Amino acid sequence: MEISVSSLAQGIDTIWVLLCAALVFFMEGGFAALEAGFIRSKNSLNIIMKVFADCTIGMLGYWMIGFGIMYGLDKAGLFGANGAFLAGSFGHLNLGIPLYAYWIFQAAFAIAVATIVSGAVAERMKFGPYLIFSLFVTALIYPIAGHWVWNPDGWLAKLGMMDFAGSAAVHAVGGWASLAAVLVLGPRRGKYNKDGSMNVLPAHNLPLAALGAFMLWFGWFGFNPGSSLSGLDMNIARIAVTTNLAAAAGGTVSCLYTFWKYGKPDASMIINGSLAGLVAVTASCAFVSPASAVVIGAIAGVLVVLAVQFFDWIRADDPVGAIAVHGVCGTFGALAVGIFSEKGGLIYTGSLKLLGVQALGVAAVSVWAFLVTMAVFYILKVTVGIRVSQEDEMDGMDICEHGIAAYTGIEASHVNAFGQPSVGLAKMTIQEENVHTGKL
Amino acid sequence: MEISVSSLAQGIDTIWVLLCAALVFFMEGGFAALEAGFIRSKNSLNIIMKVFADCTIGMLGYWMIGFGIMYGLDKAGLFGANGAFLAGSFGHLNLGIPLYAYWIFQAAFAIAVATIVSGAVAERMKFGPYLIFSLFVTALIYPIAGHWVWNPDGWLAKLGMMDFAGSAAVHAVGGWASLAAVLVLGPRRGKYNKDGSMNVLPAHNLPLAALGAFMLWFGWFGFNPGSSLSGLDMNIARIAVTTNLAAAAGGTVSCLYTFWKYGKPDASMIINGSLAGLVAVTASCAFVSPASAVVIGAIAGVLVVLAVQFFDWIRADDPVGAIAVHGVCGTFGALAVGIFSEKGGLIYTGSLKLLGVQALGVAAVSVWAFLVTMAVFYILKVTVGIRVSQEDEMDGMDICEHGIAAYTGIEASHVNAFGQPSVGLAKMTIQEENVHTGKL
Amino acid sequence: MEISVSSLAQGIDTIWVLLCAALVFFMEGGFAALEAGFIRSKNSLNIIMKVFADCTIGMLGYWMIGFGIMYGLDKAGLFGANGAFLAGSFGHLNLGIPLYAYWIFQAAFAIAVATIVSGAVAERMKFGPYLIFSLFVTALIYPIAGHWVWNPDGWLAKLGMMDFAGSAAVHAVGGWASLAAVLVLGPRRGKYNKDGSMNVLPAHNLPLAALGAFMLWFGWFGFNPGSSLSGLDMNIARIAVTTNLAAAAGGTVSCLYTFWKYGKPDASMIINGSLAGLVAVTASCAFVSPASAVVIGAIAGVLVVLAVQFFDWIRADDPVGAIAVHGVCGTFGALAVGIFSEKGGLIYTGSLKLLGVQALGVAAVSVWAFLVTMAVFYILKVTVGIRVSQEDEMDGMDICEHGIAAYTGIEASHVNAFGQPSVGLAKMTIQEENVHTGKL
Repeated sequence: MEISVSSLAQGIDTIWVLLCAALVFFMEGGFAALEAGFIRSKNSLNIIMKVFADCTIGMLGYWMIGFGIMYGLDKAGLFGANGAFLAGSFGHLNLGIPLYAYWIFQAAFAIAVATIVSGAVAERMKFGPYLIFSLFVTALIYPIAGHWVWNPDGWLAKLGMMDFAGSAAVHAVGGWASLAAVLVLGPRRGKYNKDGSMNVLPAHNLPLAALGAFMLWFGWFGFNPGSSLSGLDMNIARIAVTTNLAAAAGGTVSCLYTFWKYGKPDASMIINGSLAGLVAVTASCAFVSPASAVVIGAIAGVLVVLAVQFFDWIRADDPVGAIAVHGVCGTFGALAVGIFSEKGGLIYTGSLKLLGVQALGVAAVSVWAFLVTMAVFYILKVTVGIRVSQEDEMDGMDICEHGIAAYTGIEASHVNAFGQPSVGLAKMTIQEENVHTGKL
Repeated sequence: MEISVSSLAQGIDTIWVLLCAALVFFMEGGFAALEAGFIRSKNSLNIIMKVFADCTIGMLGYWMIGFGIMYGLDKAGLFGANGAFLAGSFGHLNLGIPLYAYWIFQAAFAIAVATIVSGAVAERMKFGPYLIFSLFVTALIYPIAGHWVWNPDGWLAKLGMMDFAGSAAVHAVGGWASLAAVLVLGPRRGKYNKDGSMNVLPAHNLPLAALGAFMLWFGWFGFNPGSSLSGLDMNIARIAVTTNLAAAAGGTVSCLYTFWKYGKPDASMIINGSLAGLVAVTASCAFVSPASAVVIGAIAGVLVVLAVQFFDWIRADDPVGAIAVHGVCGTFGALAVGIFSEKGGLIYTGSLKLLGVQALGVAAVSVWAFLVTMAVFYILKVTVGIRVSQEDEMDGMDICEHGIAAYTGIEASHVNAFGQPSVGLAKMTIQEENVHTGKL
Repeated sequence: MEISVSSLAQGIDTIWVLLCAALVFFMEGGFAALEAGFIRSKNSLNIIMKVFADCTIGMLGYWMIGFGIMYGLDKAGLFGANGAFLAGSFGHLNLGIPLYAYWIFQAAFAIAVATIVSGAVAERMKFGPYLIFSLFVTALIYPIAGHWVWNPDGWLAKLGMMDFAGSAAVHAVGGWASLAAVLVLGPRRGKYNKDGSMNVLPAHNLPLAALGAFMLWFGWFGFNPGSSLSGLDMNIARIAVTTNLAAAAGGTVSCLYTFWKYGKPDASMIINGSLAGLVAVTASCAFVSPASAVVIGAIAGVLVVLAVQFFDWIRADDPVGAIAVHGVCGTFGALAVGIFSEKGGLIYTGSLKLLGVQALGVAAVSVWAFLVTMAVFYILKVTVGIRVSQEDEMDGMDICEHGIAAYTGIEASHVNAFGQPSVGLAKMTIQEENVHTGKL
């Protein structure tokens, strides 16, 4: 068997992209766990089913329509005009890998955008209309924005916008779509009081949410380095480092900031701070130094805390912080390219040109996502309705929409004051004076 | 250092197979989470320990005996006759990768077959006999079936049976073995009433089950594309696409079907519908178009719902739906090759020949797995006993077999009607008239 | 585009190391789940936040200082003297991959060492001092030990010590640091009674712990084979096999041993037995036969059970078994190289030389880690304090340190004696005499 050097190169690139696609797909499980853990038990199954809807109906939408709009032959820099069902020529993409490998990687991105919104609308949006919206995201909203930024003939790509793995095209789009959705939908019952005060509707399972964050961070090893689309691009190593350092800086800063400001390091902010760092560096991971990545992540770690408070202040009720993490930090991440990029960034060149392009670009895709989502949600609201009834919201969506509770009969043993089980093998009597503490 | 092109090719293929093997191994964690989540809390630790048994004792069984029987030198098309403990020559396999890389990939498949059965026998099968059965599956039951289909000299391989990643050899074998096991074991106490009615024994942790499904879907990125055994086989990209589209179609259809039929999209069916699509396309993923994969997945998405109802109707009590997902959809998947394959499929050629071979092949391995499992279970039943006592079944197997509960003292804060904690930082008073809802 | 054979080789090695780094990083999620599941609910969020601290603050520490100390230009065989913030030359490492790829892989190891300790100090160590300690581990304690063993000019490396993926440099260091930490910190309140008896402080969520173990095992597919740093090193296939067989043997033996000794297979021991096998084979995975790996794993499977009992006997309270798994089995694993290695091992050569070097090496890094950790903990104890107040320990660290409970309002439906929900769709009446059991 004769093997050519170019077929080896294609093989390396293909397995790289396929394995990275697997990592990105696994982020759906991470989103599901994160979002379910951050909300109340009674709605947690429903949100997981919405993530499933993104992976199933949403993926089909990207296959049937979305991919063609995003990467098909360009019309006026605005959208693609061939490629429904993956049919037709994609030669203009000059891919070094099979089209199918490219598609599966892109599909995992598309469904992530829908899933970002699922978190923001949690605990009150009806399941049926969500299915329709998920299809809209993967078939239209995201592909149009993605076309502008990533299709070689998109109008923002031609302006020179740099958004390596999608702080703008993925995260800002998902985040600002979330804001629009939340504004039309309204806050959860009981979240905000008429006197201006606010109630905490607590996360029901923070270990599950944290597990989701670890899955997302893990998936980002594919999301960012995989966006090189080539295992022979040695920049992938740098991308892995900048990605991780930004996450580390984001989590560190949100931890220390809440520790300092509130006296207690806030668990959900530590989680969201790490994710904020990841989102913020996603556009620039291939263009900045590790030190710049640390700065970008650190800024995102503060931004996310302030943003969560801001959106509560304007009563945009986002149970999981999706607007803050993806909208705000995605937007910041797109701008950060214009500041920190080694090629064209303000710090290195003194020029505002790239920063201006980035600002225009992220504004364009954000406004697009915001307005179309608002329109879709408004139409859904006045037609099929988007919000469960007051009674169903009180009872919980798991029972009302799926007829079953997320948890049934978790038969935790009764425990005494020392946390010891009253059933089990160990026989024990504890007396306060009999307790041994301190060893050295 | 001189590096040859052939050593580069071997390197690409080896890292591809090893990383795919890791993904397939991780499916064990997915099975554990899925099965534990689908059953009652009091038996959930026990089932996870059974999955551990597959990974430990089962893996040793495949090393000591199973691999040799499956891939050793053929005797009469029926079994392999060398290769215990990986010793001896495997030159007849013409591997392009090290034997060890091949083995670890295959071992992850073998333990999966045992784990399929663990779900069906959940909540009543004793732990000790399960250890013995797990060893039987990986040392004998699966290797014989696998030999017929995948050893180059197996009798079904020679007939031209096509089962790319094992809808028949893995899933149908595991699924029909499950049916035999369940028939000997009998249903759980309280499942079926004498008057013909049936009780729901509810899933205790659906978020955990869903997390398991995401892990399984993620693992399938290794299961199917990895079965190419070569990262230079550019068909791996198509395989990734067909695999994912079938899963998407399966989950979409089971969602819409239960939504339409019962008025509520059924959570466990959405999960199992996606898995059904994955199982069904496993045989044909390398041979069919994306559109065919969607059709295959869609059919599986209905089949799995009907099959779950059927097996309850015949009182084959399968707490997690393993027979429906793996047995029925695995069988359908093997047949689907004969219908949809671009080479030899009924639709493309008008010939029934391949379909006939597929039918014969999946029937052969299914009957083998069913009969041997029934024999093993029957012998275990009349010797050591396979079922826990009535009392232990009521008390739960976690306490009775492991002396510990899966969950102890999950100290969930008390929450009021708004789901707000009565402990915590937020001080709040809520009055019904003070609640602000609806924003736009 | 001209592609050279050497750039292809570098590409293969780079994607291999980056993907393995992702797997090793994911082990942090595994540790978090394992440790949280093994302890009481009221402290479970706190321990997960400590693992986050390792991933964030710890990772920054390894970037700022640790990596330079570990892999910088050698001074006297003891430490590296350049490379802070990844600056400066690392030509002496003769890397075949980009420095950044090497760094991210190493960084994932460094944070794992800190995380090992987090488990041992669970349920009573304050969060603030833990942050400081985590930084010490990744910036100093681990890098010094790692320098001795893995820097080409380290004094143990020059003596010929063989520690392929770090039974000594990672696991023994983490394990014995844990012992020192636990001795200074003292046991949890209520664990040991003055009369010499002991109480069980039960694991709150064993399914979560088991899920963590599956994640760790999955991550070991990167930890050990990835330590080759080359996808062209065909030994990686063997490493994958020895790693998995040792885990299988460890879990099998701990299962059967506790089954035989206590009449019940112990769930936490089955989990820890598998991990013990993984830890023990980590040094020798590249140098031993599969059969030797099985023996190594089997020994570790007994050792871990005995060690857990021993440390309880000396009242070194380690809630998750970290000292037993990582300290004892890591030490054994380093020695096992001297016994089982095909090159230089006692069994193959009859010579005690390698075994002596291994014993010296593992003793050196263990004593180093133990003493420095003890000093750091003692200084922290007399300055900022390391232990939460008695009241906070009783109330739980999640509320006291983070102001929130890990779980809030898991609204499990009420279930009757058959585990059936009293809410839900199914309408049913169960009478004892109406129950149908036993099918065949």
